[in-house]
Amino acid sequence: MEVIMTNRIVVTKTHIDGAPKETDFKVKSQVLAQSAQPAGSVIVKNLYVSVDPYQLNRMKSDSSSQSYSFLAAGIGPGEEIDCYGVGKVIDSGNPEFQEGDLVVGLLTWGEYSVLKPGSMFRKLDAMGFPLSNHIGALAFSGLTAYAGLFEVGKAKKGDRVFVSTASGSVGHLVGQFAKLHGCYVVGSAGSKAKVELLKEKLGFDDAFNYKDATDLRTTLKKYFPDGIDVYFDNVGGEMLEAAIDNMNAFGRVAVCGVISEYTGTGRRAAPNMVDVIYKRLTIRGFLANDFMSIFPEFISKACEHMGSGKMVSIEDISIGLDSIPSAFVDLFTGGNVGKKIVQIAQE
Amino acid sequence: MEVIMTNRIVVTKTHIDGAPKETDFKVKSQVLAQSAQPAGSVIVKNLYVSVDPYQLNRMKSDSSSQSYSFLAAGIGPGEEIDCYGVGKVIDSGNPEFQEGDLVVGLLTWGEYSVLKPGSMFRKLDAMGFPLSNHIGALAFSGLTAYAGLFEVGKAKKGDRVFVSTASGSVGHLVGQFAKLHGCYVVGSAGSKAKVELLKEKLGFDDAFNYKDATDLRTTLKKYFPDGIDVYFDNVGGEMLEAAIDNMNAFGRVAVCGVISEYTGTGRRAAPNMVDVIYKRLTIRGFLANDFMSIFPEFISKACEHMGSGKMVSIEDISIGLDSIPSAFVDLFTGGNVGKKIVQIAQE
Repeated sequence: MEVIMTNRIVVTKTHIDGAPKETDFKVKSQVLAQSAQPAGSVIVKNLYVSVDPYQLNRMKSDSSSQSYSFLAAGIGPGEEIDCYGVGKVIDSGNPEFQEGDLVVGLLTWGEYSVLKPGSMFRKLDAMGFPLSNHIGALAFSGLTAYAGLFEVGKAKKGDRVFVSTASGSVGHLVGQFAKLHGCYVVGSAGSKAKVELLKEKLGFDDAFNYKDATDLRTTLKKYFPDGIDVYFDNVGGEMLEAAIDNMNAFGRVAVCGVISEYTGTGRRAAPNMVDVIYKRLTIRGFLANDFMSIFPEFISKACEHMGSGKMVSIEDISIGLDSIPSAFVDLFTGGNVGKKIVQIAQE
Repeated sequence: MEVIMTNRIVVTKTHIDGAPKETDFKVKSQVLAQSAQPAGSVIVKNLYVSVDPYQLNRMKSDSSSQSYSFLAAGIGPGEEIDCYGVGKVIDSGNPEFQEGDLVVGLLTWGEYSVLKPGSMFRKLDAMGFPLSNHIGALAFSGLTAYAGLFEVGKAKKGDRVFVSTASGSVGHLVGQFAKLHGCYVVGSAGSKAKVELLKEKLGFDDAFNYKDATDLRTTLKKYFPDGIDVYFDNVGGEMLEAAIDNMNAFGRVAVCGVISEYTGTGRRAAPNMVDVIYKRLTIRGFLANDFMSIFPEFISKACEHMGSGKMVSIEDISIGLDSIPSAFVDLFTGGNVGKKIVQIAQE
């Protein structure tokens, strides 16, 4: 029996070039019928969807980096917004997927998603972990942390590691991976509560509220009297400059995000390149999807650490499709802690 | 018989924090006697000495990077200024060196140098090349070009390579190494004559005068319609920003020098870090002396190319100790072409 239903999706009203506001978004209804989809499509009911800072770059009117990755492709007003998520199959034109199967992959900000043949999704084996973990710590947030720290940052035992936005979706995992690897780890965050979380729950050696710092360079010097070996950068701007001032010779900067620059409000970092030369620093941008080859290694480590309770996944879950705009806006105002997720429906 | 003589050396009068002027320097006389030197010292008559932009960083009042390399150690007013050079032994307290031996290594800006035990110098086998080549193309300028291009920039056949200060001591060798490796190479320089030199004598695919460019980003787009894979950066500042705007995915920036920033007159580069992430760029500072392990490989290649006439070393040689200040000042005003060398004495 064919499923015909109404789907509600969240879309942008216009391109967004500054900080996002809830009013930049609206909910749009569409009719969903399997017969209208390409052969082999799978329709899923969305359970959990991810909201991530990088999505803002795709909503800008001028997305100069469009061609470099599907993660950078522009999203126009009114268009479906894809996102990582977990769903349950309700109708399948693909013999490999049956009604009731759980899937994880690129869904859309909506109540339902149509997964066309060739798009990125797979059957999900939850391995005993909450479903929401599979779009965070056990998915790209975790892989980003792991690959950025070890493959890009080349962190080794005893290294001094600094993480900015340390209580964010990726940062809180970076710090835990680094501690479990024998590094000294300090994180920066934007509130007293987040700083406490880093120190007390997540095992960071130290943490500070960057909003209390009058001079980031001096602040970092205080927390890293012996210098920084690896900086996991989530913010760019002044923090990146201050970190480079405090890097040790042959230090590595893994540039994961520059959230201070996404909204066009923060000024760009102008790092001291004389330091970059004399200290032989490496500054390297990366995207987790270039590291799929180490996904098995990552997932094995993450499951081991999380299964034994040595690592925790902090999730900040909003409820319902209509909460997506506010959840997204929160990412840029420091409102979230850990991985921001929207639960669309109960399993 | 002990040698006692008067040595004339060039020193700074004060620290230099902006662009250097000839009047920042003076010639100072000192008495030189073997008996006053540490046991095992070797006194050489300087034949050729090098003048290099990095030396300015050592003359600044605030040299924050002092501890990272001997190439960054501060040099105070009135102190001997060390430099790479070729000399001839005139008195030796070291049985391994005889009067008349040619040596290459860290000499000083002077008529004579005292090479103390443990300092960096070795006997020179000129291998049929002019002595001056051994402080340029066949020494650190060459190694800098080779290591920066292949080890840091990871240039491979077919890559599109951009070199700034392309007619400089290192740049003109980078372009030739890249061409001989099968790369497409464009250089920037500061005069019409230099641009002609790059295109007509050095075999660059193309070259442009950056002073004629109203918009460096657009200019680079014109010369690299298919993007830049490797940028060998000698200048920093706006050129670095424009290059990053034009880099291809997985591009590499080898940061060799940021001459536009040494004098404090040029503004620092504020590269687009969103591009650095989405294009997964690597920006890496380096010093040639970290690549001594590939010196044999480099010197073999360089001798092969230069011996067969496929590569040429451009040298800009001033005559006499008193020409050192003007030779040095020229480096920052674009006055030199190729490797700047001062011939102190005839062999």
